Amino acid sequence: MVFDGNNNIINSCSEVIMNVVGLVTEHNPFHNGHLYHVEKARESCDAEYVVSVMSGHFLQRGEPALFNKWARAKMAVLGGVDIVVELPAAFSVRSAEAFARGAVSLLNSSGIVTHICFGSEAGNVGDLLPAAKLLTEEPGEFRDLLGRHLAEGVSFPSARAKAICSYFTGQREAPVSDIYARPNNILGIEYLKSLLLLKSEIKPVAIKRHTAGYHDRDIGLDMDIASATSIREELLAQGGLTGKVSSVVPSASLDVMREEISAGYGPVFLNNCLKILLYKIRTSSPGQLADLYDVTEGLENRISEIAQWAQSVTGLISEIKTKRYTWTRVQRILTYVLLDYTKERARFFDETGPAYIRILGLSKGGRNLLKKLKKKAEIPVIIRTTPFLRGKDEVSDMLWFDVRATDIYTLLSPGSRIPRQGLDHKIMPFFRF
Amino acid sequence: MVFDGNNNIINSCSEVIMNVVGLVTEHNPFHNGHLYHVEKARESCDAEYVVSVMSGHFLQRGEPALFNKWARAKMAVLGGVDIVVELPAAFSVRSAEAFARGAVSLLNSSGIVTHICFGSEAGNVGDLLPAAKLLTEEPGEFRDLLGRHLAEGVSFPSARAKAICSYFTGQREAPVSDIYARPNNILGIEYLKSLLLLKSEIKPVAIKRHTAGYHDRDIGLDMDIASATSIREELLAQGGLTGKVSSVVPSASLDVMREEISAGYGPVFLNNCLKILLYKIRTSSPGQLADLYDVTEGLENRISEIAQWAQSVTGLISEIKTKRYTWTRVQRILTYVLLDYTKERARFFDETGPAYIRILGLSKGGRNLLKKLKKKAEIPVIIRTTPFLRGKDEVSDMLWFDVRATDIYTLLSPGSRIPRQGLDHKIMPFFRF
Repeated sequence: MVFDGNNNIINSCSEVIMNVVGLVTEHNPFHNGHLYHVEKARESCDAEYVVSVMSGHFLQRGEPALFNKWARAKMAVLGGVDIVVELPAAFSVRSAEAFARGAVSLLNSSGIVTHICFGSEAGNVGDLLPAAKLLTEEPGEFRDLLGRHLAEGVSFPSARAKAICSYFTGQREAPVSDIYARPNNILGIEYLKSLLLLKSEIKPVAIKRHTAGYHDRDIGLDMDIASATSIREELLAQGGLTGKVSSVVPSASLDVMREEISAGYGPVFLNNCLKILLYKIRTSSPGQLADLYDVTEGLENRISEIAQWAQSVTGLISEIKTKRYTWTRVQRILTYVLLDYTKERARFFDETGPAYIRILGLSKGGRNLLKKLKKKAEIPVIIRTTPFLRGKDEVSDMLWFDVRATDIYTLLSPGSRIPRQGLDHKIMPFFRF
Repeated sequence: MVFDGNNNIINSCSEVIMNVVGLVTEHNPFHNGHLYHVEKARESCDAEYVVSVMSGHFLQRGEPALFNKWARAKMAVLGGVDIVVELPAAFSVRSAEAFARGAVSLLNSSGIVTHICFGSEAGNVGDLLPAAKLLTEEPGEFRDLLGRHLAEGVSFPSARAKAICSYFTGQREAPVSDIYARPNNILGIEYLKSLLLLKSEIKPVAIKRHTAGYHDRDIGLDMDIASATSIREELLAQGGLTGKVSSVVPSASLDVMREEISAGYGPVFLNNCLKILLYKIRTSSPGQLADLYDVTEGLENRISEIAQWAQSVTGLISEIKTKRYTWTRVQRILTYVLLDYTKERARFFDETGPAYIRILGLSKGGRNLLKKLKKKAEIPVIIRTTPFLRGKDEVSDMLWFDVRATDIYTLLSPGSRIPRQGLDHKIMPFFRF
């Protein structure tokens, strides 16, 4: 284990002839901050290769991706990533914990990844590690604190941040430290927790995420998620690629986006699914909604009720949202509605863990690494889906869920032409010659 | 029974103090031909009142109605109908046989309808009655002929028309008489068949439907369905109410349509449901599609296959269509997809028959008739839905199916504002003061 200071790490590294750094990404879309992250990760880990595990068509915040996964993989490869693999929809639309567990397990199963490099507000692993250990061990005292804060009716992430601070300070009502409340730190803690639980030999490296406005003049190097958010907002507000967008994304990304937009495939916004979502809710019984993952405490009634008059997906979310159910959680739940992601499916996928490594994009160097990956990986490496869909096993179950996510995603395309069903069987990974 | 020439008819009529003529309609939209039909029906049956049983939001040809049922009921009342009742979706989207059986049973259950007046190409009951009797009795010889023609792979209506002609002429390959092949005659035969099967005392009256072009200069009096079809085509092609439309509909109808269009509620076209339909097909298993009503002989695979690339509902239909599965039948099946109308539901609804008389519109006179209807009807008369949805009986099951049909229909509205769910609980029948 990399953290415990003994020389296991030397032993394990001696088997690895090169460093491969893994990133957990969404690239929605791939911008200059991501470019910086790729370069910085390669540099700080002295890595020969960069492998990115990227969410497919539905993202951790419960939104459909602006552009399809092949386009986003292309942007990432053109931005310096050697292999882009897909984080199955089974994990990509889940809470920070399950999302991180899925992504880290996948990288761990690859057998070739030596480092994980993530951006966080804290900027170093040491600040996040105590919380990760605490959450892994979950001592009784901590569980009590967590239960107490949850009973206040706040959201789970908020209750947990409070419990961590109470535990470390020994005070029942400690001020919540920024470290445990900022979104990328929360994800970072989850990555560390997953590494600990997996007893992984992968070495974590945190790089500092600049907050928005930190380098106002260096907007191109700004790594804050605000960049991706502001690009999405700009696309939504202006309906196209403006000068503001082109100033913050690499020109190769811009070209890919331009192609997708002119083909009518993107950008895809949450509201594009409004009528389909309302159809699904209006034709589902409360029992069917209650079977969906993360729908608890009668939330199904709230969803049914508010779907009666909602005029937009954001309107739907803002009305369903409560102190306990945050905006993002509700947004994710609506994606579960769309994908019919039931509690039963989630249980099955959680037991299985990522069942395959699906390749979405390869650089020239990535092709060499792919040979090594195929030898070392503990789970199947998938380039063509068809052979893996024939069985009745966990690989085909999880892959069908991705295929279906694509079939739903393509219906959200803004263009007049609907992309054909089964793109997952047709589109080959992007390969950079 | 009215046809057998004995004096039963006199006996039964003596109980009825006035004539009430029932019409089976869709009013999609209500045009001058319908106005003529209402007047002619009143006159030929010497009727004090006209009751129209009208399809709700989904029609016999498997299409959504251009305008919602309350707007269409309003047009009908303004056009002279005294009471408009809804043909439940359970029957309105079915083949001629089940559609007619549903509508005639409903009128029969009213206890007040003395006549049924329908338009047909033949124009008199006598021409249609032998076929109706044959189909009611279904002698073995006829069944053999029908089986032989079905085995040729042609559609059911076509095989049946052939079998009727073979039976009556005694020839195994008789030329098919127009009488058994024209759409309104087919419906007329079904009305007669339903009356015979129900041993109904309602007296059938057929009036001649003018074919398109019969009275070219009298287009306002043209009763052919081509009038409704041409209005729909005009609306679709021109995207609004043109002079051509206003020349063939009463001005009251025109006003109603204008209101609906300006509110963004209509006109609704089949293609408005494309993405929802594709979503439903793409997320249904072959087994789920095979459970739908009228999906047989592996048609579910054909539907799934063609939905992969279809770009329009008409494209979808034209590709699924075969010699056996006519355009209209396929169109209806797609409505079953949309409404999740399963074989099990159809069996249940068929056993039940129409479970209520739901009022959609009333003239001044209709209010008096309503009192009589409430006394005489064998099934509940519904004005407000809410009290009838609480039970767990056939009334609430069938009514929920209508409520859901409305909730799906409103999602097809062309306007930017989505009508709220549960309109069936909110909108009262149109009442003409």
